[in-house]
Amino acid sequence: MTIDELAKGVQEGKRRHLAKAITLVESNREADQQTAQELISKVRSSKETIRVGISGVPGVGKSTFIEALGNLLIEEGLKVAVLAVDPSSPATGGSILGDKTRMETLSSKDEAFIRPSPTSGTLGGVAKRTRESMMLCEAAGYDVILVETVGVGQSEFEVASMVDCFLVLMLPGAGDSLQGIKRGIMEIIDILVINKADGDQEKMAKNAVTEYQNAFHLLTPKYDGIGVEFLTVSSIKKKRIDEAWEKIQGFISALKEKGIFEAQRKEQELNWFKRLVEDEVLRRLWGSETNKEKAAELVEQIKKGEITPVKAAYDFLSSEISR
Amino acid sequence: MTIDELAKGVQEGKRRHLAKAITLVESNREADQQTAQELISKVRSSKETIRVGISGVPGVGKSTFIEALGNLLIEEGLKVAVLAVDPSSPATGGSILGDKTRMETLSSKDEAFIRPSPTSGTLGGVAKRTRESMMLCEAAGYDVILVETVGVGQSEFEVASMVDCFLVLMLPGAGDSLQGIKRGIMEIIDILVINKADGDQEKMAKNAVTEYQNAFHLLTPKYDGIGVEFLTVSSIKKKRIDEAWEKIQGFISALKEKGIFEAQRKEQELNWFKRLVEDEVLRRLWGSETNKEKAAELVEQIKKGEITPVKAAYDFLSSEISR
Repeated sequence: MTIDELAKGVQEGKRRHLAKAITLVESNREADQQTAQELISKVRSSKETIRVGISGVPGVGKSTFIEALGNLLIEEGLKVAVLAVDPSSPATGGSILGDKTRMETLSSKDEAFIRPSPTSGTLGGVAKRTRESMMLCEAAGYDVILVETVGVGQSEFEVASMVDCFLVLMLPGAGDSLQGIKRGIMEIIDILVINKADGDQEKMAKNAVTEYQNAFHLLTPKYDGIGVEFLTVSSIKKKRIDEAWEKIQGFISALKEKGIFEAQRKEQELNWFKRLVEDEVLRRLWGSETNKEKAAELVEQIKKGEITPVKAAYDFLSSEISR
Repeated sequence: MTIDELAKGVQEGKRRHLAKAITLVESNREADQQTAQELISKVRSSKETIRVGISGVPGVGKSTFIEALGNLLIEEGLKVAVLAVDPSSPATGGSILGDKTRMETLSSKDEAFIRPSPTSGTLGGVAKRTRESMMLCEAAGYDVILVETVGVGQSEFEVASMVDCFLVLMLPGAGDSLQGIKRGIMEIIDILVINKADGDQEKMAKNAVTEYQNAFHLLTPKYDGIGVEFLTVSSIKKKRIDEAWEKIQGFISALKEKGIFEAQRKEQELNWFKRLVEDEVLRRLWGSETNKEKAAELVEQIKKGEITPVKAAYDFLSSEISR
């Protein structure tokens, strides 16, 4: 299949072509990367899309929530793509979405495209690929892209930096039984959803919302005039999933009204370019044997208190370091 | 004066020599920087010191608190140095500590050394210099180093990365009248002090503590088993300043018991070395005219949607970029 055929297929929303295109993007082969880049430059999304990041600890019910939300969106006539960022998958020996049976009803629908997390590469790599897969899904006509992460390492921050809206699922509970919020995460949450709010857990979930609201109301808002949204749902009973979708839409509209939406997407792309360059430059800097040895020496001297970090930095930079 | 004489004077705790040494550290002249580095490598602190970062919005009463705390420490037979990180000072036309009359009683004491913020250089520069001034003060026999910051830009994070204990001052208030906590700051606070808890504000201050405790108890602790400490003080009435000092000492002891104290100082130094190198490498990367032009072109193409950030990064890195 030629690139043009592949591009045409993607643009026409053909699943087989989209899958093949993403495989190219995910490939580590240099040649495939070239093709992937050429391909991406050939396809464009024709309509407005919504990118939602969904995070939460294992067991919080991400898959059930995504399945319930995805089915609701399809009922509303939208096409949904589900991508995953899971740096842990190589370790855990399988991506979070690898086991599709966890999203049986959704994965069986034509309007849904579910892609397991690429199990290769660094987090940066996985995230990079997810960003491009997202673009391909949009070109293939998917209206809503749901990016799931288990929140290992920096993955939430990676995902938050590539979506329009970042949603975090939490378990019900009150007081000290509330699970702590991972450091730094509070700042990137747009919508906090307490899942499993059914049966005798419903009241607990409501209390949890109050507690989280108390915790958040002291925080300077992420966007001026747009506060964090809170709600309780039951993904398994499909309760208030529609409210969750309304909250997401309301949040997106607010961003658009304030002219933040487009600006943020552009900013995300420029930051992404800058970060890719800087990451690679620093990877080369600390990766070179010469530099490693030089740095190791200096670190030893710093540890022994023989030189200050500043002196060490001067020495390192003035020495013949390979870049 | 030769470097050796200067070093000797600093080591003997001579104020004049210490001041001169810090002036060298703060100088932008390459030659002075060389001398400063040589000097720093010649002096060592002989005793255990405590480094405390103190932050809070203008008007919260940082100077009054520092004066009250400083005088208390001197009464306990300790020597106190007060340094400031204030990136805003060039703008505001004067450093936060420039007006010494704000710490009249403290600055008149032999056991206190107060150094205004260097009004030159970037934040990174100011912070870098403050780290080295801190070392010089310790070599000069000061037991407690208080590093004040107005919390402009990244200064709190800079300061938090160079001290053992980060203390933030807040104003009394309750509910919505509570001032919001700057993004990311919650995570670096070790001790939260509500100042101006006197007269009819005392009750408000107590309520504030409860509210902040609610906000913080959900956060994963910065150090396993060491929680954030809260208290109310009145710096002007010198109420519970001793408690503040006890909290600081208690926190430091906890760090030492857990073996975090020394490890953290070493880690701070190694990170500092790494950051100085990376900052300079990236400064050179984006500073070169060739790279600027190349990057500007690519940014334009990204904005027009002609290429993806990944393609742009590939192009940038494969092009002849100067480093």
